[in-house]
Amino acid sequence: MDFAPSPKTQDYLARVQAFMAAHIAPIEDDYLRQNLAANSGADWRAWQVLPVIEELKAKAKAAGLWNLFLPDATRGAGLSTLEYAPIAEETGRSFLAPTVFNCNAPDTGNMEVLHYFGTDAQQQEWLGPLLAGEIRSVFCMTEPEVASSDATNMQATIVAEGDELVLNGRKWWATGLGHPDARLAIFMGLSNSEAAPHARHSMVLVPLDTPGVNIQRMLPAFSDYDPPYGHGEVWFENVRVPRTNLLRGLGDGFAIAQGRLGPGRIHHCMRCIGAAERALELLITRGLSRVAFGKPLLHLGGNLDRVADLRMAIDQARLLTLYAAWKIDHQGVKASMNEISAIKVVAPNVLQRVVDEAIQMHGGAGVSHDVPLTALFTVARALRLADGPDEVHRAMVARVELAKYKAKG
Amino acid sequence: MDFAPSPKTQDYLARVQAFMAAHIAPIEDDYLRQNLAANSGADWRAWQVLPVIEELKAKAKAAGLWNLFLPDATRGAGLSTLEYAPIAEETGRSFLAPTVFNCNAPDTGNMEVLHYFGTDAQQQEWLGPLLAGEIRSVFCMTEPEVASSDATNMQATIVAEGDELVLNGRKWWATGLGHPDARLAIFMGLSNSEAAPHARHSMVLVPLDTPGVNIQRMLPAFSDYDPPYGHGEVWFENVRVPRTNLLRGLGDGFAIAQGRLGPGRIHHCMRCIGAAERALELLITRGLSRVAFGKPLLHLGGNLDRVADLRMAIDQARLLTLYAAWKIDHQGVKASMNEISAIKVVAPNVLQRVVDEAIQMHGGAGVSHDVPLTALFTVARALRLADGPDEVHRAMVARVELAKYKAKG
Amino acid sequence: MDFAPSPKTQDYLARVQAFMAAHIAPIEDDYLRQNLAANSGADWRAWQVLPVIEELKAKAKAAGLWNLFLPDATRGAGLSTLEYAPIAEETGRSFLAPTVFNCNAPDTGNMEVLHYFGTDAQQQEWLGPLLAGEIRSVFCMTEPEVASSDATNMQATIVAEGDELVLNGRKWWATGLGHPDARLAIFMGLSNSEAAPHARHSMVLVPLDTPGVNIQRMLPAFSDYDPPYGHGEVWFENVRVPRTNLLRGLGDGFAIAQGRLGPGRIHHCMRCIGAAERALELLITRGLSRVAFGKPLLHLGGNLDRVADLRMAIDQARLLTLYAAWKIDHQGVKASMNEISAIKVVAPNVLQRVVDEAIQMHGGAGVSHDVPLTALFTVARALRLADGPDEVHRAMVARVELAKYKAKG
Amino acid sequence: MDFAPSPKTQDYLARVQAFMAAHIAPIEDDYLRQNLAANSGADWRAWQVLPVIEELKAKAKAAGLWNLFLPDATRGAGLSTLEYAPIAEETGRSFLAPTVFNCNAPDTGNMEVLHYFGTDAQQQEWLGPLLAGEIRSVFCMTEPEVASSDATNMQATIVAEGDELVLNGRKWWATGLGHPDARLAIFMGLSNSEAAPHARHSMVLVPLDTPGVNIQRMLPAFSDYDPPYGHGEVWFENVRVPRTNLLRGLGDGFAIAQGRLGPGRIHHCMRCIGAAERALELLITRGLSRVAFGKPLLHLGGNLDRVADLRMAIDQARLLTLYAAWKIDHQGVKASMNEISAIKVVAPNVLQRVVDEAIQMHGGAGVSHDVPLTALFTVARALRLADGPDEVHRAMVARVELAKYKAKG
Repeated sequence: MDFAPSPKTQDYLARVQAFMAAHIAPIEDDYLRQNLAANSGADWRAWQVLPVIEELKAKAKAAGLWNLFLPDATRGAGLSTLEYAPIAEETGRSFLAPTVFNCNAPDTGNMEVLHYFGTDAQQQEWLGPLLAGEIRSVFCMTEPEVASSDATNMQATIVAEGDELVLNGRKWWATGLGHPDARLAIFMGLSNSEAAPHARHSMVLVPLDTPGVNIQRMLPAFSDYDPPYGHGEVWFENVRVPRTNLLRGLGDGFAIAQGRLGPGRIHHCMRCIGAAERALELLITRGLSRVAFGKPLLHLGGNLDRVADLRMAIDQARLLTLYAAWKIDHQGVKASMNEISAIKVVAPNVLQRVVDEAIQMHGGAGVSHDVPLTALFTVARALRLADGPDEVHRAMVARVELAKYKAKG
Repeated sequence: MDFAPSPKTQDYLARVQAFMAAHIAPIEDDYLRQNLAANSGADWRAWQVLPVIEELKAKAKAAGLWNLFLPDATRGAGLSTLEYAPIAEETGRSFLAPTVFNCNAPDTGNMEVLHYFGTDAQQQEWLGPLLAGEIRSVFCMTEPEVASSDATNMQATIVAEGDELVLNGRKWWATGLGHPDARLAIFMGLSNSEAAPHARHSMVLVPLDTPGVNIQRMLPAFSDYDPPYGHGEVWFENVRVPRTNLLRGLGDGFAIAQGRLGPGRIHHCMRCIGAAERALELLITRGLSRVAFGKPLLHLGGNLDRVADLRMAIDQARLLTLYAAWKIDHQGVKASMNEISAIKVVAPNVLQRVVDEAIQMHGGAGVSHDVPLTALFTVARALRLADGPDEVHRAMVARVELAKYKAKG
Repeated sequence: MDFAPSPKTQDYLARVQAFMAAHIAPIEDDYLRQNLAANSGADWRAWQVLPVIEELKAKAKAAGLWNLFLPDATRGAGLSTLEYAPIAEETGRSFLAPTVFNCNAPDTGNMEVLHYFGTDAQQQEWLGPLLAGEIRSVFCMTEPEVASSDATNMQATIVAEGDELVLNGRKWWATGLGHPDARLAIFMGLSNSEAAPHARHSMVLVPLDTPGVNIQRMLPAFSDYDPPYGHGEVWFENVRVPRTNLLRGLGDGFAIAQGRLGPGRIHHCMRCIGAAERALELLITRGLSRVAFGKPLLHLGGNLDRVADLRMAIDQARLLTLYAAWKIDHQGVKASMNEISAIKVVAPNVLQRVVDEAIQMHGGAGVSHDVPLTALFTVARALRLADGPDEVHRAMVARVELAKYKAKG
Repeated sequence: MDFAPSPKTQDYLARVQAFMAAHIAPIEDDYLRQNLAANSGADWRAWQVLPVIEELKAKAKAAGLWNLFLPDATRGAGLSTLEYAPIAEETGRSFLAPTVFNCNAPDTGNMEVLHYFGTDAQQQEWLGPLLAGEIRSVFCMTEPEVASSDATNMQATIVAEGDELVLNGRKWWATGLGHPDARLAIFMGLSNSEAAPHARHSMVLVPLDTPGVNIQRMLPAFSDYDPPYGHGEVWFENVRVPRTNLLRGLGDGFAIAQGRLGPGRIHHCMRCIGAAERALELLITRGLSRVAFGKPLLHLGGNLDRVADLRMAIDQARLLTLYAAWKIDHQGVKASMNEISAIKVVAPNVLQRVVDEAIQMHGGAGVSHDVPLTALFTVARALRLADGPDEVHRAMVARVELAKYKAKG
């Protein structure tokens, strides 16, 4: 249970920090402005990736700062979940860094699925280009017409017909669907409706140019379309793919999902911690530089108390996330469901709270694009819904707690 | 201290509700979609007012539902602050209604300023067209470069030169500045820098087409530009207006501001209550219609507790707002500063909390444009900064509380 | 919906304030000290009423400040619930005042039961002496062995045998049971187990000297036995009383309870508001008088923000309580269940919060007997459980809220 | 930064758990009842130590479970702060265990002071008997007449006169002062009023039977006198002790205090975590065993959400405490002031919150002595004031946070 960064982590972290300081920090504000100007609004078919992104990716790859999220040492950096955590935190301070290091959601989770569960052919076709950063992928699980917090509500279907699988259903909040390089969807649907609840679903690889894959629109989150990724609504209408596109066997969807979402949630949470640190920095910097009633804002009213409370909240959230990461590494995802759920509640809520206070300290600037606070707020607010809403994760934590008593009794 | 709606209020309220049910509710969702499509993004010079707005305004005027905010019975409806409160609450349920009834901020506050403090000539030139809903106006107080929560920080200047006033300074968050019909700014600046703190500032009427009035940009709030109104940044660079454009005398700015902001804050807060009621309705309706784990969402976990807590918070906020309105009517704005500050803290925070919970109940839809929750959230979040941030109002409440002890001691 | 104090209220309030200032405030601290010394600990059989109490009661009665709680003008002061509210608030500032004015729980509720539901004979035997302040009474509803928040759990039984009723069951938290003058219990039990849920219970008058009424012990609340009243556990073991001791008919227990608890809860809540005002006064007085780091404590950190937040919370709770009182007066208890539940949650929680902050401002003194803060805290904490825990009242508020939708749909 | 329990910790922890299960748990409830009966109320001169305490101490000493808190391997168990933490947590589940293992405050802190800063003669006279558990000691720092949160307020004086030191001043909240075995006070006072702020104070050993040491009273905390320890107010009136009773040199008081309070605060916090775990167990056990509305209480309303939130809060507080302990071990107390302050805020607040919820789940029983919840509440509430109130520790955390910016800027 040693949370100190390993030598490998220290090395990577130092290099990531240096890279971000040299190549990302100086251009990020400009990039965000230009990206908004170039990719304004809902018209995602016109979105483009600004050239600087590919330049930075090339630099990062050349610097060996690439696919750091993947525990496999041949395909990725060979860092454990715990080892990767401080690096994820660091990249969470920037909106660009995750992409630049090829460590952005949902591609990381999709690559993990292909790495752990893909056949050689599947890996060759899709994992290679994804690891190379040449294409983008999406994950299609949430549905607009049902409460997706209860996975048994899922209405999308997968029907085997001969050598083909026929897919039908409506999905939304497929992050990355608007990206010009998006090529692949992992589609989750009901395949074995008579089976036991957790053996009813399957996952299928669907090239996005397959007939019947009909992208309806990109969804804004707090009016932000998040270009060039976007969050899409897509209808699968009699989509036919070869049976070889199935991931593992029919009915294995939940088992794959569980493996996929565990470390991915840790990554999200660590990036939240980094984002919260950045928001706290913005809060303090602003609070020290602006003066009212003869004092820096930070020294007025309860502001210093707030700084203390936020610092304590961030530090506790970080430690809980490191603990969850450590447990995944040592006891596996399944044994760590409780801890994963716990940080999935804690980290986004801490981020939302820190950002809300940082906005307040900025006055009107806080809600504008002059500082990236509403973008950070949106990350936090959306994450309290994505990958399972707070309610589902609280229920998991309570269930595990009560199980201790049933075991006793 | 009778909070029951007067017969006059009951009559107006019933007619407002009927009008909204007949003419606004059926088209509001469509309007919001079309408005976003027509007036997308930051390019405010291309913004237009959808024709339906003027049609609805004409209908409302014809129905006698017009300028209800103005206590004066000849120019407005002659409703006291308390009498108008339930009507403001009702209009707060809609994004369109305040405009349709010519009761939207900041025009209401500006009309009150002109009504109470304008000369006959000023009223004829500006108040007439504003009351007729033919033009829009803005209020220029907040500045980008200083903490505007402390009004003594204000850097904009007003210099009298012969028969002219020369204005310089940068202002932002001037709501309505992007509106195609915006014609008038009320500009607040430092005119008497040697005077006592509350006699240093003045207010001047500035036609927006005066040379030197240079609109820089519209500011997004949570990425929403709020077209066709917008919130603008504008630089006043050697703007010259005749001295007759001065409101009252030099140094009277604060006295006017106090009178202007009191009832206006009540209106904001009452609209918050209405918005909170609407958000709670959306929460409950969604929570009853979606099912997970075999039950409507509303019956899962602590959701019913949340409904109860939100109901109690809304009802308390409403009562406090009615009390502040009553006190303004009976003891004047100055004696009610404490109550005005109290509801200015309470109401937007209650709205923010209700909307946050409503978003959570909606899942992904909650952060999208499919429901108006992020727009309501933005209203709440921005209002915690506008017209004085929470901190300034808390300080006012505490100051009044402590004064009771100094009076004793 | 006029919350302004009526002339009658103003008159009584002024006289109550004058009486308290002249006769109670000067001796209360001494009384509390002497009472603790004289009636220490759990040995309730040795408790005595200090002579000053009867002297003060006689003075209050002589001054016409007596039984102010009773809406009936012949037996009480003829004040409506709303009219009595500010007086209840005022008495809530003191631990002695409610007793001195014969307005203390649970006797007030018991007197109301006898007034509204008692026969002439019952009124003559019990209501007379209670109104005269000669005896004390208790209410036996809560049971130690079941979750009493669900009244259908009640296990105590009432069996009619000829002209007698036979009572069995264990009750606790019977406030006043340790009082030397306690003579009467109102006992609630299951009489008609086959009837509809709300027609199963009855209430019976039980003289405390009836054989089989076996007082087990007094219960401490936060180690405070609250002498000379006390909160008792009492076992009813084959207690036989004449059938004429039945209140109304068999099965009428719930109907009586509902009538009894409504106004009583308002009284509790108004006293909470008064207690909260007193705690806030103690907080501010201490915060102004003690100095640290060169400033009065109140001017350090977020203390002034806290004062503002507490002021806003108290004012909102008061308004909500007045509203509930007004509604009881105009629409009856049954139509006001929602509002009664709402303030029953809000008021004690506000008091607990104010007292907790006041304790913090006092440092170590705050948890000692040097100031009455832990006693006020205990009142608040216990009241969140008594007369229905917060959870039951939140559920009621949510139920009423949802009913609006079922009515619509 | 390895938080996993060392083999030594695992061994001690297993033995402590076994000892507590075998010898303490079976008798604790009885002990608490008998102790309250034997040592009731404020009359501390009659307090006695129940014989079972000395029997248990003898057993613990024989089992080698003795002085586990002391990092020194010859005098104590040689456990680092981090190694001792899980053991302190375990003992925090019981009111008896800390005493039984000779690990109770304030004796532990006093022993540390003597161990680190005492002369051979001082150690021989006082440390020996304390380590043997033969006598008890108190720490006299807080004063009734000033805000002790600001140590520079301290009014007690130490004047050197020849070979003697003359002590004057009033102290309170001296825990253990009522204990029949209390023999020694460590007195802190102003000795060098002209020196730099942190070189003004000294600490002196004062036998409690020295003339002029006048114990005034024991102070209740939430009406609980905490016998047989007690929290005393004591006046030092021209108390004369030999100069050899000085700890280190004149002016070294703060340096000693800092060293004393750091690990002691960790111990307090770890015991809070254990106490919070126990309160959560009581909450869940009660919530599973009582039924209302057809379900165990725990499955009603938001109760499971609360369980989840409390579990997450406890786990985060534990991790933060372990982190602070680790930092003390590796970087010293001075470098860890920030972390010590952070957990000193977090842990007692988490305990207070868990206990408050546990009380609510118990209904009336929760505030009585039938369960130890009000005793745990009092521990939490008092600890938010003792050893520096929350406000002082928040200020420390904020100060350290801001220092990062000053270092940069």
